[in-house]
Amino acid sequence: MGGRPTWLYQLSKAGKLCVPAMNVNDSVTKQKFDNLYCCRESILDGLKRTTDVMFGGKQVVVCGYGEVGKGCCAALKALGAIVYITEIDPICALQACMDGFRVVKLNEVIRQVDVVITCTGNKNVVTREHLDRMKNSCIVCNMGHSNTEIDVTSLRTPELTWERVRSQVDHVIWPDGKRVVLLAEGRLLNLSCSTVPTFVLSITATTQALALIELYNAPDGRYKQDVYLLPKKMDEYVASLHLPSFDAHLTELTDDQAKYLGLNKNGPFKPNYYR
Amino acid sequence: MGGRPTWLYQLSKAGKLCVPAMNVNDSVTKQKFDNLYCCRESILDGLKRTTDVMFGGKQVVVCGYGEVGKGCCAALKALGAIVYITEIDPICALQACMDGFRVVKLNEVIRQVDVVITCTGNKNVVTREHLDRMKNSCIVCNMGHSNTEIDVTSLRTPELTWERVRSQVDHVIWPDGKRVVLLAEGRLLNLSCSTVPTFVLSITATTQALALIELYNAPDGRYKQDVYLLPKKMDEYVASLHLPSFDAHLTELTDDQAKYLGLNKNGPFKPNYYR
Amino acid sequence: MGGRPTWLYQLSKAGKLCVPAMNVNDSVTKQKFDNLYCCRESILDGLKRTTDVMFGGKQVVVCGYGEVGKGCCAALKALGAIVYITEIDPICALQACMDGFRVVKLNEVIRQVDVVITCTGNKNVVTREHLDRMKNSCIVCNMGHSNTEIDVTSLRTPELTWERVRSQVDHVIWPDGKRVVLLAEGRLLNLSCSTVPTFVLSITATTQALALIELYNAPDGRYKQDVYLLPKKMDEYVASLHLPSFDAHLTELTDDQAKYLGLNKNGPFKPNYYR
Amino acid sequence: MGGRPTWLYQLSKAGKLCVPAMNVNDSVTKQKFDNLYCCRESILDGLKRTTDVMFGGKQVVVCGYGEVGKGCCAALKALGAIVYITEIDPICALQACMDGFRVVKLNEVIRQVDVVITCTGNKNVVTREHLDRMKNSCIVCNMGHSNTEIDVTSLRTPELTWERVRSQVDHVIWPDGKRVVLLAEGRLLNLSCSTVPTFVLSITATTQALALIELYNAPDGRYKQDVYLLPKKMDEYVASLHLPSFDAHLTELTDDQAKYLGLNKNGPFKPNYYR
Repeated sequence: MGGRPTWLYQLSKAGKLCVPAMNVNDSVTKQKFDNLYCCRESILDGLKRTTDVMFGGKQVVVCGYGEVGKGCCAALKALGAIVYITEIDPICALQACMDGFRVVKLNEVIRQVDVVITCTGNKNVVTREHLDRMKNSCIVCNMGHSNTEIDVTSLRTPELTWERVRSQVDHVIWPDGKRVVLLAEGRLLNLSCSTVPTFVLSITATTQALALIELYNAPDGRYKQDVYLLPKKMDEYVASLHLPSFDAHLTELTDDQAKYLGLNKNGPFKPNYYR
Repeated sequence: MGGRPTWLYQLSKAGKLCVPAMNVNDSVTKQKFDNLYCCRESILDGLKRTTDVMFGGKQVVVCGYGEVGKGCCAALKALGAIVYITEIDPICALQACMDGFRVVKLNEVIRQVDVVITCTGNKNVVTREHLDRMKNSCIVCNMGHSNTEIDVTSLRTPELTWERVRSQVDHVIWPDGKRVVLLAEGRLLNLSCSTVPTFVLSITATTQALALIELYNAPDGRYKQDVYLLPKKMDEYVASLHLPSFDAHLTELTDDQAKYLGLNKNGPFKPNYYR
Repeated sequence: MGGRPTWLYQLSKAGKLCVPAMNVNDSVTKQKFDNLYCCRESILDGLKRTTDVMFGGKQVVVCGYGEVGKGCCAALKALGAIVYITEIDPICALQACMDGFRVVKLNEVIRQVDVVITCTGNKNVVTREHLDRMKNSCIVCNMGHSNTEIDVTSLRTPELTWERVRSQVDHVIWPDGKRVVLLAEGRLLNLSCSTVPTFVLSITATTQALALIELYNAPDGRYKQDVYLLPKKMDEYVASLHLPSFDAHLTELTDDQAKYLGLNKNGPFKPNYYR
Repeated sequence: MGGRPTWLYQLSKAGKLCVPAMNVNDSVTKQKFDNLYCCRESILDGLKRTTDVMFGGKQVVVCGYGEVGKGCCAALKALGAIVYITEIDPICALQACMDGFRVVKLNEVIRQVDVVITCTGNKNVVTREHLDRMKNSCIVCNMGHSNTEIDVTSLRTPELTWERVRSQVDHVIWPDGKRVVLLAEGRLLNLSCSTVPTFVLSITATTQALALIELYNAPDGRYKQDVYLLPKKMDEYVASLHLPSFDAHLTELTDDQAKYLGLNKNGPFKPNYYR
C-alpha cells in the first residue's frame, strides 16, 4: 500500500523535484489504517492461512515497533502470544516497555521463539546467522517494507534444501533436519498471504484522490517544487467520510467553545504536527 | 503537568514573544508519559481512592479521545467497563471506532451511564442540562485541562444541596433526592485524587532540563523569537536515559543498514513530524 | 470435536446404558482447548477466510456466553469490535457484564449489528423474523453445536434468492435487494471455514485415549453402568504432557507444603468440581 | 471474604460434622466475584495506595494462577506489566500459557522482577532465600489466603532493619543497603490496603443468606451431616438479582427450546459441576 516516500524527500533535497508532491502516506488517517489497524488484523490472517499455527502460548519476536509493529504486537498479545520486541529507536522502545513487551536484541531470544516477524523497513534484520540458530519449525515472515528485511538470499545455498509445502510456504531444511518455515519467500505477508479489507482501500483511495484534487485546484504559489503533508483539514475530511459506516456521531463545537479553543468550528482541530 | 502551550503560539503569532521558546509539552516522550501512560493508571487510581467504585460492568462515557482519553479508555475497557466516546475531531473519532468504542453525542447516553469523564481541554462540555439528566449516583470527574470542562458553577444554585462526604468527594443532591457524585469539584482528578509516579516526573523534568540547556547553549541564530518543538534527537535522548530501568536492550544499526536507511547511527531515527 | 454428551446422561437416567462411559468432553483441559482457546482463534480465522471483513469498529452480537462465546467475544473485543451478548443463564450473563459486554435481547440490537454469531447449543436462536430485520450485508454464522441455531430452513422460500458467492458463502437476497451473508449454510464455522490446530487435536486425542485406557484397565467395580467425569489426576496428566511445548516449568510442592495443603505431591491438586 | 472450607470437608470425612453445611465459597457467583473480579481491581488499588508504583513496563511474578491469580494477572497485563507465573498444577499452568504468560520457577526470575505477588493458599511460597535474592526496591505482597505465603518470620532477624515508611508499608533493609518493600507485613493486600466494593459484598451476603434459608427450610432428609455445594438454581438466583444494576436483559427460552435442551425454562441451566 506504499510506504514513506523517502525518495521524494531525497529528490526534493537534491533540488531535482520538478513538481509539487503530496506525501499522503504520512497523513494520520492513511497511516493508521494502512499500518496500525490493517496489520493488526492481517498478521493473524496471514499466519493462519499459511500455517494454521495456534497463537496461544507461542513465543514471538517482532522486529520494529512502529505502527506496523504496534498493530502486530497488539493482536498477538491479545490472542495469548508472548511477544518480544527489537528496536533501534529509544522512543519506540520505551513505548514497547509501557505496552508490556520486553525489549531485547534478536540474539537474546532467537533460540527460543516460535515465530519471527520483521516490520522495520530496514534490510538484513534477520541474517543467516539468526536463521542458523532458530529452533526447528520456527516460522519467519515479513510485514515490513520490501523484501529485504530477511536475508533470504543467504538461504539459497547448496547445503540447505527448500521444500515448497503449500502456496507461499517453504520449508528450508538444514543438514541436521531442522526446518525453518519461510512465508512468501520473505516478501510482504500482508499482501501475499492475507487480504486488505475494502474499508482500508477506501481510506487510501480517498486520501490519494483528495491530494490530487488539491494539487490540481490549488492557486499558483500555494505549492512549490517540494514535498507536502496532506493539509490537516483534508485528513479530517477523509476520516469524517468514513464515520457513518460505524454509525458514529460527532459532537459539534458551540460558538463559545470554538472561541475558547481558538478553533474554526469546522476544523482543522489539531495542529499539523499532531499524530 | 502542563498542557499544550496555546498561549505561547498566540504570543508568537502576535509578534509579542520576546525570547525563543521550546514547546516541550509536545515532545513525543513527555506527551505519551504525561498523558497516555500516566492517565491510563491515574484514572483507575483516582476513581478508586475517592469512590471505591467497581469498574466491571460499569457504563462510562469519556468526552475526548486524545492521548488522555485514549489512556483512560484503554484502562477502563481492560477492567470490564463499557465505554462510550464523544469527539469533535473526526480523526480521533475514527480511532475510537477502530479501538472498539461507540462514538456518541453526550445526550444519547447521559441517562444511562454510571461515570462521566472529561478529557477535552474544552469548556462546558458537561452542562447543567446534562447534570440534570444523569441517573442517581452517577460519578462525574475531569481528567482534562483546567477546571472548566464541567460547568460546576451551574450547580451552585439554591435548589441543589451539596454534601461533602469525604475529601475531594461531594454529593450534589437534587430536590427529588437524586445524587450526583462530583469529584475534586471538577478540578483535575489525576492531580487532586491520584499520584504521579516518580518515573513520569523524571521524564518530564529531564525533558524540561534538556530544553533549557539547548536554548542556553544554542549558537546565536539557531532559535528566533518563536516557539520550537524539542529537537527529535533530544526527545530520543530522554527516552534512552529511561530504558535501563526496564532492562531494555536497544539494537544498533550496522553501517550498512544506516546507509540503506539514510540515517545517522546515533539518530534521530524518525522525521520530526513523526509521533 | 464433540459437545456435552446429553444423550449419554439421558440413557443413564433411563437405565439403558449397558457399559460404563466417560464424559471426556467436560474434562477441564479438553473443554478449555476445544471451546475457549480454539474458538478464540477460529472465529477470527473463519470470518477472514470467508468474508475478509475488518473487525475494527464492527458491531457484533454473540448469542451465548459459555466457553465458546467467551472465546469468540475475547478475540473480537481485542480486535476492536463492539460486542453485545444474549444469554439465558444469569450466571453467564453476569460474567458477560463483568467482562465489559452489554447483555441484551437479540431484538434490541438486530437492526444495527454487522455480524451475528451463535454459540448456544440451542435451536432457532436466530429466526426468520430476526433475519428479516437485519441490515444489508449483515454476516450470520454459527460457532455452536449442530446446524440448528440459525433457522436456515426459513430462508429457503420463493421470495428469497440465494447466490453462492464463494465456497461456504451464500448471499441471501430479499426482494428489496437487501443481502444477508450466510456462512457455511448455518453449519459450524470453526469446522467448515477454519482449521483446528494440531495442538488442540493432540489434547483431545490424548484425553480420549487416556479415558479408554482407564476404562479398560480399571478393576471390576470401579465403574458401573453410568457416566463418569475423567478423574482429575488424568486431566492434570494430559495438561502436563503438553507443557513442554511452551517451555513451561512447573513448581513442585515441598513435603511440608503438601502436608499443609493436605495434598499428594503428584496431584490431584484440585477438588473434582473445580473448573 | 473466606476461602475454601477445607476444615469442613475434613470434619465431614472424620465423621465429626454434627450439622449439614453449605460450602457457599465454591458457588460460581461468589467464587468469581470474591476472587476473580474483585482481585482484578484490588491488586491495582492496593499497590497504588501503598506504593504509587507505575505498572507500565514493570516485571511482575505472580505465584499461583487460580481465580485470584487470574484476576491479578489480567489487570497487570492490561496495564502494561510483564507478568510471569509460578504454578504447581499443570492445568492452571497450561491456562497461563494460553493466556500469554511464561510459566517459570520462582528462582528463574526472582533477581529481575519488580513485584512479587502470592496467590496460592500455600505456605512459605516466598522464602528467605528468595527475599535475599530480590533486587533493590522489589515490592512483595500477598493476595492469597492467610499470612503464611511469604515467610515474614524469616525477616525478623538482627541483621535486617525494618523501617515503617507509611501505614501498611515496611522497608526491610539488608546490610548492603538493599531494600525490599513489604506490604501489610505479608497479610492480605486486598483486605489491608484496598477496599471491597459494595457490589461484591452484596453478592457474598446474598449467597450466604440464601444458603442459611435453604438449610433452615429444607424438609427433613434433604441434607445430612455433610458438606453441600449451593444448589445451582440458587447460585443462578443470586446472579439474576444483581443483573438489573447493569441494565442487563436476559433472554427467555421458548417452550420449544426448553424441550429441545431438556431444561426447565426457569433453570437451572447448567449441570452442577459446570463452572
